[in-house]
Amino acid sequence: MIKVVLIGTGKVAKHLFKAFYISKQIELVQVIGRSKTSLLPFKELVDTSTNYENIKDADIYIIAISDTAINPVSEHLKTNKKFVVHTSGSTPMKSISSAHRKGVFYPLQTFSSGREIDLSEVPFCLETEYKEDYRLLQKLAHAVSEKVYSINSEQRKLLHLAAVYVNNFTNHMYFQGNKYCEKAGVPFSILTPLIIETAKKIEELSPYEAQTGPGRRNDKDTSKSLEGLIGDPIQKDIFALVTKSIENTYDQEL
Amino acid sequence: MIKVVLIGTGKVAKHLFKAFYISKQIELVQVIGRSKTSLLPFKELVDTSTNYENIKDADIYIIAISDTAINPVSEHLKTNKKFVVHTSGSTPMKSISSAHRKGVFYPLQTFSSGREIDLSEVPFCLETEYKEDYRLLQKLAHAVSEKVYSINSEQRKLLHLAAVYVNNFTNHMYFQGNKYCEKAGVPFSILTPLIIETAKKIEELSPYEAQTGPGRRNDKDTSKSLEGLIGDPIQKDIFALVTKSIENTYDQEL
Repeated sequence: MIKVVLIGTGKVAKHLFKAFYISKQIELVQVIGRSKTSLLPFKELVDTSTNYENIKDADIYIIAISDTAINPVSEHLKTNKKFVVHTSGSTPMKSISSAHRKGVFYPLQTFSSGREIDLSEVPFCLETEYKEDYRLLQKLAHAVSEKVYSINSEQRKLLHLAAVYVNNFTNHMYFQGNKYCEKAGVPFSILTPLIIETAKKIEELSPYEAQTGPGRRNDKDTSKSLEGLIGDPIQKDIFALVTKSIENTYDQEL
Repeated sequence: MIKVVLIGTGKVAKHLFKAFYISKQIELVQVIGRSKTSLLPFKELVDTSTNYENIKDADIYIIAISDTAINPVSEHLKTNKKFVVHTSGSTPMKSISSAHRKGVFYPLQTFSSGREIDLSEVPFCLETEYKEDYRLLQKLAHAVSEKVYSINSEQRKLLHLAAVYVNNFTNHMYFQGNKYCEKAGVPFSILTPLIIETAKKIEELSPYEAQTGPGRRNDKDTSKSLEGLIGDPIQKDIFALVTKSIENTYDQEL
């Protein structure tokens, strides 16, 4: 059994907790949280504490908290030369205090409260300072997921940028779509089949092949006419730039 | 049985053809195409012609061709006061020649060759010049889909803009994500679970609620650091503007 202490009580911590709790290969020894309230969902099931002085012995300490708190919390941990990992996409491994053996355990997924995620489908991106620690972290990842990748800090930064595009920016495109549905007095759910198909297409076609629409056809009349519906100057700029970027991508082809 | 003549042999025409062909409420009397080659996939199953002079009698004539060809083709049709509809999201109903009773039969979906689409899930946006024609078009739509909406030309233009965001622009976000995966030497498939979850979330949460990431948290350090990875000036501008637009959306909240 791999002994794990989980530090953090947010969305990522909660999802990891659930998967660790039911795994037969993992012994969840403790959850550390900032406040007694934040620990309430865990305290019936596992030892909890708000005090870093009371931290228990474990094979892996997982820091699943906000990016800026990773370094100070890792400095706090009185666990010299223990194996300490964080779960952040945008934080380098070296942000963890050098008092520990460092590592990263980054689940590449978007977690929302109230939405169940099947962790077995979530890609885990691993990095460690030492080879032996990698083997242990890999074992932990495989206990909860089928998809485990070795990703160094530089690769992870690029992956995080890619994730911002396909998740954060994509969701903001949905937000814009929603706005124009409201303006038309049509329920946003009319776009759901299109949104789902756009995502699923990517399992078979590359985004390069999957592209359709006026930008791809270099149909400037249609693009201009649609742009004319946009009032807000920032949104007008975004529309024009993304259209230009699509046109440029297929420039050679037409 | 509703008698239908289909004009066009492209992606939309092919998907409509399949659904019409198996429907017991629809009699597909003819497919009209530009060339004999384009008609090859249809000619074993239905009467076909390249000559508008040979057009057969039908209840509805469906023009499923490129936007700019809709008007000239409708002018060509020697079917005075027949019911003629187009399938375009971005073309007003009035583009159809006034020699006919006009209408629109717009399937709000992205069609790619080689990908099957279940038309029964696809929202059909209908508009007609005359009330009686609406009833007929509605019957046709219900024969192939469960989702039928009455959408006028003004609403459809806004919907088309929304579709450009959630489909064309979203796919271009995937394209950018793919680029950074390639740069990191990581297969793009590592992002598939995130892409699918981002889309599925929208069935339960509004895009406003579903937003996550540095823009939403107004975490300008992370956004700046990610922007620093981007070389191309247009992409840098898009990154900065979309981030700004997300920050502005949640400005009041923080």
